[in-house]
Amino acid sequence: MIGVFDSGVGGLTVVRALLQSVPTSVELVYLGDTARVPYGSKSPATVARYSKMAARFLTDRGVELLVVACNTASAFALDELRASLSIPVIGVIEPGARGAAAVSAAGHIGVIGTLGTVRSGAYERAIAAIAPVAVVTSHACPLLVPLAEEGWLDGDPIADAVVRRYLEELRAKDPLLDTLVLGCTHYPLLKPNIARISEEVFGRAVTLVDSGEAVAAPVAAALPAVATDKLERRLLRCFVTDEARFAEVGSRFLGRPLDHVEKVDL
Amino acid sequence: MIGVFDSGVGGLTVVRALLQSVPTSVELVYLGDTARVPYGSKSPATVARYSKMAARFLTDRGVELLVVACNTASAFALDELRASLSIPVIGVIEPGARGAAAVSAAGHIGVIGTLGTVRSGAYERAIAAIAPVAVVTSHACPLLVPLAEEGWLDGDPIADAVVRRYLEELRAKDPLLDTLVLGCTHYPLLKPNIARISEEVFGRAVTLVDSGEAVAAPVAAALPAVATDKLERRLLRCFVTDEARFAEVGSRFLGRPLDHVEKVDL
Repeated sequence: MIGVFDSGVGGLTVVRALLQSVPTSVELVYLGDTARVPYGSKSPATVARYSKMAARFLTDRGVELLVVACNTASAFALDELRASLSIPVIGVIEPGARGAAAVSAAGHIGVIGTLGTVRSGAYERAIAAIAPVAVVTSHACPLLVPLAEEGWLDGDPIADAVVRRYLEELRAKDPLLDTLVLGCTHYPLLKPNIARISEEVFGRAVTLVDSGEAVAAPVAAALPAVATDKLERRLLRCFVTDEARFAEVGSRFLGRPLDHVEKVDL
Repeated sequence: MIGVFDSGVGGLTVVRALLQSVPTSVELVYLGDTARVPYGSKSPATVARYSKMAARFLTDRGVELLVVACNTASAFALDELRASLSIPVIGVIEPGARGAAAVSAAGHIGVIGTLGTVRSGAYERAIAAIAPVAVVTSHACPLLVPLAEEGWLDGDPIADAVVRRYLEELRAKDPLLDTLVLGCTHYPLLKPNIARISEEVFGRAVTLVDSGEAVAAPVAAALPAVATDKLERRLLRCFVTDEARFAEVGSRFLGRPLDHVEKVDL
């Protein structure tokens, strides 16, 4: 069984990618910490504390591989989770960094994410370890999460204006960007606007790297650690710490209706 | 001692109003549940649970009067807090409702707030109890909180566009509005845009009622329950469940720098 956790609903974009790449004989279980979402504006200590509680819930249920879908949790809690758990733990930052380093021709990589992820410097460190000469520029985009949750997406004038403002601020920091990491699980919903507007702002096509999709490769590599079930996977079990709007908003992130949502206290 | 609690930083707009109306011999203490902010998108059960924990923290410190500055907490937890505590508990919804009923000439009252506050119907019930013939129309405005926290305020084209969209949606529900309740502690920061744009959208001046300011009157009435201190109040003590950005963002809400911020676990 693979466990995936996120601060809220956004990690369902990672589940969506895994549902396409993981054999159906492997069970997936999801935990969204919706009672305490968002993590992106909170301190490292608080994010690490919540992440450990989420991980414990999933390991108590018997998961054999843990995917930390939340970028902020990956930035602040991954080392601690790896040190304290005996199962493989995969975050989204290293796969995203690897993906960006692989596709960037000019070596000018941008990262957009939450305040926490950007302040952590985690992408800078991860990319430097793989591609030491790459130039990495991060920019926090706090309005993108509420926009995605409100469903104001591609073509919405306000959503487009917010995306344009953030990308122009990023361009002021590095006009030579050729690659942009979507460093938050909410951002794939805004991928069409980001693709279109980044081309206008930078005057060339910018390659977008979705950290959530990039996680499929390391998960595939770790699959031998995961037992297959006798039955084909029929449903995706989702646990949440607060039910409000999860099913309603979640289907937009997962790309299909949610099967099973159950509220738990951590 | 008066205790004020809110889901996060927004309740400092209520403290700002109280600092002007409460004698300086009465001590004020503030708790922002910043580790679990926001409440506005969460379920009634979760909001009630967090509110009780916040109230317990303040009563354990000896407060003699509790002000629930958060509209969502007032909507979902006030009755329960009143039933379980032996001190006076004042929420923001009844004072806001009273203020709106007093100033509305046409009796067409709008309420803007979080998803939770709007779904609760608390303002509708409170206004109906005071002014049974008033027409009350509520509208949830989820983007206004992140805009205020980002500091995109009056005159910012994106902030103005978001305010205009929500007010146009409200106008479609009731074009006869003459009064609008700011039913969230974050909204006073956007009061200039809301005042200007509501006049354009409705074609007449719309009277804005700030629920946080309206709380000053019932607090004044309850002051005999509160002991005065020997010393003049010198500082405002703030407790938060997560420190990230509180001091930075908080001074914008309080209108002056914060004296004393201490992190606590609930």
